[in-house]
Amino acid sequence: MPPAVHVGPDAEPAIARAAEEAGATLAPLEAADAVVWLGHDPDALPELPERVRWVQLPSAGVEKWLDRAGAEAATFTSAAGAYALPVAEHALGLLLAGVRGLVGDARARSWEERAGTTLEGSTVAIVGAGGIGRALIALLAPLEVEVLAVTRRGNPVAGAARTLPAERMDEVWGAADHVVIAAPATSATRHLVGAEQLAAMRDGAWIVNVARGSLVDTDALARALAEGRLGGAALDVTDPEPLPDGHPLWDEPRALISPHAANPASAQDRHLARRVQENVRRFAAGEALLAPVDPEAGY
Amino acid sequence: MPPAVHVGPDAEPAIARAAEEAGATLAPLEAADAVVWLGHDPDALPELPERVRWVQLPSAGVEKWLDRAGAEAATFTSAAGAYALPVAEHALGLLLAGVRGLVGDARARSWEERAGTTLEGSTVAIVGAGGIGRALIALLAPLEVEVLAVTRRGNPVAGAARTLPAERMDEVWGAADHVVIAAPATSATRHLVGAEQLAAMRDGAWIVNVARGSLVDTDALARALAEGRLGGAALDVTDPEPLPDGHPLWDEPRALISPHAANPASAQDRHLARRVQENVRRFAAGEALLAPVDPEAGY
Repeated sequence: MPPAVHVGPDAEPAIARAAEEAGATLAPLEAADAVVWLGHDPDALPELPERVRWVQLPSAGVEKWLDRAGAEAATFTSAAGAYALPVAEHALGLLLAGVRGLVGDARARSWEERAGTTLEGSTVAIVGAGGIGRALIALLAPLEVEVLAVTRRGNPVAGAARTLPAERMDEVWGAADHVVIAAPATSATRHLVGAEQLAAMRDGAWIVNVARGSLVDTDALARALAEGRLGGAALDVTDPEPLPDGHPLWDEPRALISPHAANPASAQDRHLARRVQENVRRFAAGEALLAPVDPEAGY
Repeated sequence: MPPAVHVGPDAEPAIARAAEEAGATLAPLEAADAVVWLGHDPDALPELPERVRWVQLPSAGVEKWLDRAGAEAATFTSAAGAYALPVAEHALGLLLAGVRGLVGDARARSWEERAGTTLEGSTVAIVGAGGIGRALIALLAPLEVEVLAVTRRGNPVAGAARTLPAERMDEVWGAADHVVIAAPATSATRHLVGAEQLAAMRDGAWIVNVARGSLVDTDALARALAEGRLGGAALDVTDPEPLPDGHPLWDEPRALISPHAANPASAQDRHLARRVQENVRRFAAGEALLAPVDPEAGY
């Protein structure tokens, strides 16, 4: 018996097709075994009929959904990890734009000798080796980049030359040519990068942040960049966010700000469809679903 | 007997070390079996003693050296292909800077909704699949980009979903989301990209040129970009080059110009050392050398 899946609040065609391709039949909510819910407001999700055993949510972060998920008998799954590739691609773009001198090129109005350096042959530290970090490691591999990964416990990460545990973070800053921040925002990671860490970084180092603005001490960063020793900072997230007009980073020749654009809408749709297809397949086969929400753990 | 290699005109330490690591002993010119010549002026290379059987040159293009190479009994080798990776990396950086919206980001002074698209999931045409094109294919592979390669004869290229021969070039422009030019500059490739080709490209397409400026009709490009339908153009080479001050492309929001910086000095030294090491190893082992110069073919 194929599972009956309800796609709501609107029956987004690409998502409905993905469910069907994985073997589901589409159904109204009252006849559904599972729900793919594309809305972002928990209050807009109707009461679930008893036969619904699974709800797929559209975003990676599910803070708002924890109460609802905890109160329902159905399993909730998030889209955590589904958007790793587009975000890792953006991190690579920011890193190359910085290291290869394209930030200066974009602002120039005249042909002059301006050369960046290459990323290939360098050492890049990736702080946080979850889905995004691991996807970035795969993108850096053909560039012959040596990756220094930092994870909570320091367990080896595939493709990284070395992995350090969070407690040895101090060793990271001077050990890499460039640093990418891809760690979750928690109380422990707030201002992970401050004046001391910036001072320890190598001359010419670029720092990229595709995680959350709070991981970097913005004032310390602006001061460090103004000194001119570092390569620069390329930030998809800022603190405060949005970065206010007139902020010194808008005028800083060594800063590149992209307005939280690492996961553009076109990519979201495609990757959510892919995740829905995989989870519907797993649901139909009785296999473990990807990214189940754990209301007690909080993600 | 290890080969005696002379490194000149100056005994550049990294190059001399590379030769030694491949099994050579360093020698003055008069006692040398082979010469690694780092100068760019053919007239500065002294007359070669009869025992010199091989001369390694430092650049990929050897137009200036053809007469000398033809007149000597020794085999000359160029550095063709040695710099493929840094140049391909630059092409990837230009492509990502364009597609991901970083060109606009670098010029912005305010946080607004601005989002590019992703490169992952797109189709990229690579016109010219020599060393640079093939290196770029390897960089695009983990981004799940579908590559459409164009080569002279259309023989299959590893990693490309399809390869077309040059005579079917007309089909390429509308078949890809973005286009990278990496073909040699010849009379046949002059203005390979003109008004007609630009008109055939897809909406939002970025065009990247890391080959030679003459392959693109600059005036036609400037007009096409001004119309606003294309994504933009990211050019490491221009025609004329240097691009003069006040040229419309300097003011074009959809253009990114990097000043012939795809192969920065730091990368040149590293990759030339690697090539010298490989060719000295081959010379010592009696194997075929990489990139022999053919004075009659002209490269």
